[in-house]
Amino acid sequence: MSKKKTVTVPGSKLKIIPLGGLEQIGMNITAFEYEDSIIVVDCGLAFPADDMLGIDLVIPDVTYLKENIDRVKGFVITHGHEDHIGSIPYVLKDVNVPIYATRLTMGLIENKLTEHAMMDVVRRKVVKFGQTITLGSFRVEFIRTNHSIVDAAALAIYSPAGVVVHTGDFKVDYTPVFGDAIDLQRFAELGRKGVLALLCDSTNAERPGFTPSEKTVGKTFDILFEEHKDTRILVATFASNVDRVQQIINSAYKFGRKVAVEGRSMVNIIDVAQRLGCIKIPENTLVDADLLKTVPREKQVIITTGSQGESMAALSRMAEGTHRKISVGAGDTVIFSSHPIPGNEKSVTKIINRLLQKGADVVFQDVHVSGHACQEEIKLIYALVQPRYSIPVHGEYKHLMAQAKLARELGIPKERVLILKSGDVLELNEEEAVVTGQVPVGDILVDGLGVGDVGNVVLRDRQHLAEDGVMIIVMTLQQYNGALLAGPDLVSRGFVYVKESDALMEEARLVAEECLVDCLERGADWNRIKSALKDALSEFIWKKTKRRPMILPIIQEV
Amino acid sequence: MSKKKTVTVPGSKLKIIPLGGLEQIGMNITAFEYEDSIIVVDCGLAFPADDMLGIDLVIPDVTYLKENIDRVKGFVITHGHEDHIGSIPYVLKDVNVPIYATRLTMGLIENKLTEHAMMDVVRRKVVKFGQTITLGSFRVEFIRTNHSIVDAAALAIYSPAGVVVHTGDFKVDYTPVFGDAIDLQRFAELGRKGVLALLCDSTNAERPGFTPSEKTVGKTFDILFEEHKDTRILVATFASNVDRVQQIINSAYKFGRKVAVEGRSMVNIIDVAQRLGCIKIPENTLVDADLLKTVPREKQVIITTGSQGESMAALSRMAEGTHRKISVGAGDTVIFSSHPIPGNEKSVTKIINRLLQKGADVVFQDVHVSGHACQEEIKLIYALVQPRYSIPVHGEYKHLMAQAKLARELGIPKERVLILKSGDVLELNEEEAVVTGQVPVGDILVDGLGVGDVGNVVLRDRQHLAEDGVMIIVMTLQQYNGALLAGPDLVSRGFVYVKESDALMEEARLVAEECLVDCLERGADWNRIKSALKDALSEFIWKKTKRRPMILPIIQEV
Repeated sequence: MSKKKTVTVPGSKLKIIPLGGLEQIGMNITAFEYEDSIIVVDCGLAFPADDMLGIDLVIPDVTYLKENIDRVKGFVITHGHEDHIGSIPYVLKDVNVPIYATRLTMGLIENKLTEHAMMDVVRRKVVKFGQTITLGSFRVEFIRTNHSIVDAAALAIYSPAGVVVHTGDFKVDYTPVFGDAIDLQRFAELGRKGVLALLCDSTNAERPGFTPSEKTVGKTFDILFEEHKDTRILVATFASNVDRVQQIINSAYKFGRKVAVEGRSMVNIIDVAQRLGCIKIPENTLVDADLLKTVPREKQVIITTGSQGESMAALSRMAEGTHRKISVGAGDTVIFSSHPIPGNEKSVTKIINRLLQKGADVVFQDVHVSGHACQEEIKLIYALVQPRYSIPVHGEYKHLMAQAKLARELGIPKERVLILKSGDVLELNEEEAVVTGQVPVGDILVDGLGVGDVGNVVLRDRQHLAEDGVMIIVMTLQQYNGALLAGPDLVSRGFVYVKESDALMEEARLVAEECLVDCLERGADWNRIKSALKDALSEFIWKKTKRRPMILPIIQEV
Repeated sequence: MSKKKTVTVPGSKLKIIPLGGLEQIGMNITAFEYEDSIIVVDCGLAFPADDMLGIDLVIPDVTYLKENIDRVKGFVITHGHEDHIGSIPYVLKDVNVPIYATRLTMGLIENKLTEHAMMDVVRRKVVKFGQTITLGSFRVEFIRTNHSIVDAAALAIYSPAGVVVHTGDFKVDYTPVFGDAIDLQRFAELGRKGVLALLCDSTNAERPGFTPSEKTVGKTFDILFEEHKDTRILVATFASNVDRVQQIINSAYKFGRKVAVEGRSMVNIIDVAQRLGCIKIPENTLVDADLLKTVPREKQVIITTGSQGESMAALSRMAEGTHRKISVGAGDTVIFSSHPIPGNEKSVTKIINRLLQKGADVVFQDVHVSGHACQEEIKLIYALVQPRYSIPVHGEYKHLMAQAKLARELGIPKERVLILKSGDVLELNEEEAVVTGQVPVGDILVDGLGVGDVGNVVLRDRQHLAEDGVMIIVMTLQQYNGALLAGPDLVSRGFVYVKESDALMEEARLVAEECLVDCLERGADWNRIKSALKDALSEFIWKKTKRRPMILPIIQEV
């Protein structure tokens, strides 16, 4: 493959610098640099890993962009999912450059900017498919693809060192619900002219075959609506899957049902989609959830968030009977139009059990298709684009490796299949591609309003507190002679149920007291006292309970 | 189905009282009661749910057995998995009655009793397949089945009110690795004579078809060993799956490799299995991991625990380079002979990525079969046993419902298919089956040496601490006039990185001080001071950070 020459001008090399998104699902952000121009593809967030206790979301370290802000020409965004747009409000506080995106993508970005009161300070340009924008030494063309959100784009990034094609998240859907099929002809044309490198979605690179068309789910809805004519129907799905919502509405309309939408994120997205003409809702089909009672039960459809079992989402609250308007039970059919994202299996199962216990009928198999390309689709893109270099992106290491294997099977020599790490600076042209350095990268944790003020020390403490709780020892000492004036008193939380552990706590207090008296007699300083108390209590507690609460000695001086 | 009369004597009804194991996977324990005789089937533990922070394991509340201990005749155990034997050492401390089990099952129970220094105080009897034991009004027959552990038994429980068949965990394996196939003829004979109720494993009741024979995995190992002739091979699997280990050893022997076993639980179980003749290891095949260096790399096999991505298990430590003896990298093939248990998907993926990054080849698909019956096997058991009542067991609600659906499709009338809850007292005979009451049931949490001393209050505190940490305010007051002698001082852990949040902490201290001075001026008592401080600080911290650390005011008096 790729025996043709790519069109390059002698001169500098192109740099590709992933600032996130490799080694993990989420937080996609990649810088492209040519001489004094830098452009950034996507600006996503990641959801916290299991050990990031209390963290709301994770954004990328963009030190490199901050330090080179004069050269950063703009952000080009492939589509409107959180893992591609979620960090924009945070990153643009430091790196305020223009954003380029297609219609719905920009609509969703603007929702975020509005929430963060940043609409007035961020420059934005909506780009059409086929349109090319110029950003310093780069030109960027937006190419239509298909994905589980409308208006997803691939990018052709033209630089003096060659053309790079970045697929974004994509699948090949010959019969999409909204808009046209992926512009395969354009991929082919680019390939004909010569493509230096292909950055291709790896999410489903382990899966053989082809991802089915979104339209197949519509047929499934028709069948399910026919089968459950006598019950109310609730459908849980991803808030951002506008096409899915469209198909649910289509089936509802066909069967003469009214539709209500529940869940703030879904209401917001449908709102934007409707305003931009990305969804078509027949008149008198959508009703407010409050007005549902006026509609016979078997003529109701409720589309809701919570398909991942999120405990605060609408579906969970309906199942638990804590939802303000809707409660689920016998006479309801609940359809999960989704697959559990890895890590969510247990919470999804929990809510399914809950719904069944309340008497609802639950359908949770085969009412979903993926938004990502499987192996045959990935091969198709490689066959059209015929890149000189293959750079698998979007996925954990095992996904990147799976795509690398495909690329090699398609004839790209091993040394031209490049698995990058976040932070790698890849310099490439027609002759060679070499990682020449590293830029700082990392996870910045967002907790409430705090951005980056929770790091490893705080997380380690939270982990420790979560495991075995905390035990605090307080005492007051006389300033001039160190005499014990009050305490030591013990307070614990998350360790044992104190009311039933009086004896243990009193014993622990005596251990602390003895240790303290001993320290004071020896004239030990505060640091020594604290560390002696920690040791003595740790040992005592471990011996008695085989637990290790965090032990916090606090000394006050009068 | 079940038009024949079951053989019953007029008189009392049989009571079936599940004390755990319904609504969840794990913690199987069911009491059977007839007049003054109670027997208990299984005594398992559950692993802690995600919100049970710091908890090691969960055991059942057996108040009902304690209160009726004079009538409890014994525990009959179906097989040696933790969810069927894990609570024995805890429960028998209060309910010390004899245990009956087959050979390997008893071997594993004895391991536990030895660990808890209880071998001398617990009466035990090893039962053979086909053997019947008498326990008060009951007789119990052990019937051979197949499962992912050797020596699994179903039980025929004979009572004056009729015969109950309890399958335990089972599958139908016509070509098992060790021992004979499930005794289908005996199920048929019992069915012929008349069975009152069938308690049948529901774990795979959602899955159509038949679970493949364990032997199919052996063939897969042969193929994989052939394909990876030039690398060292590591196989991760469940410690208790003796047949799986047998097949790995068979393939290793066939290909002239030496085998080392890593992971304490696996070493223990293989030890017991070897002693009891449940596994056959050819001479000079097993070597100590220390001696592996003397064997050429491509002649080594390492069988290890950690197939669920457990961070402390041998495989994780090998992948992270923290294992004492073995480190994994290029030149290794790691085979996952397991499926991730729901909830473990992310940790399994994490370790696969880690292994790939270190250069190992990883095989993780299609090297495992389930140990539980799928729909066709469940139907087969129903067809043979033809019970009057169907009582699905072993599984979450959705699994029980799936089996209930099968039972109804097989012709058992709806009112004779009974979905029980833990604690239900089901009274039944040939004429009727009614839930007549409830006994106390629940989760007893084990944390270190503590059994039941961590309850909802402590768990709520741990959850709170895990989310946002703790902030402690300490102050010393003069006893007689309440004057402020020292403080208020603030100490926090798991809230913010204090070194970088000086300003915030100082502001918070001032808020606390102001509030305290105000309280003292108003002559507020300690409780009021504490609650005012909590409110003032909570509000301040929430406004500044949108976080809610646990706030703990501590007052000392001099």
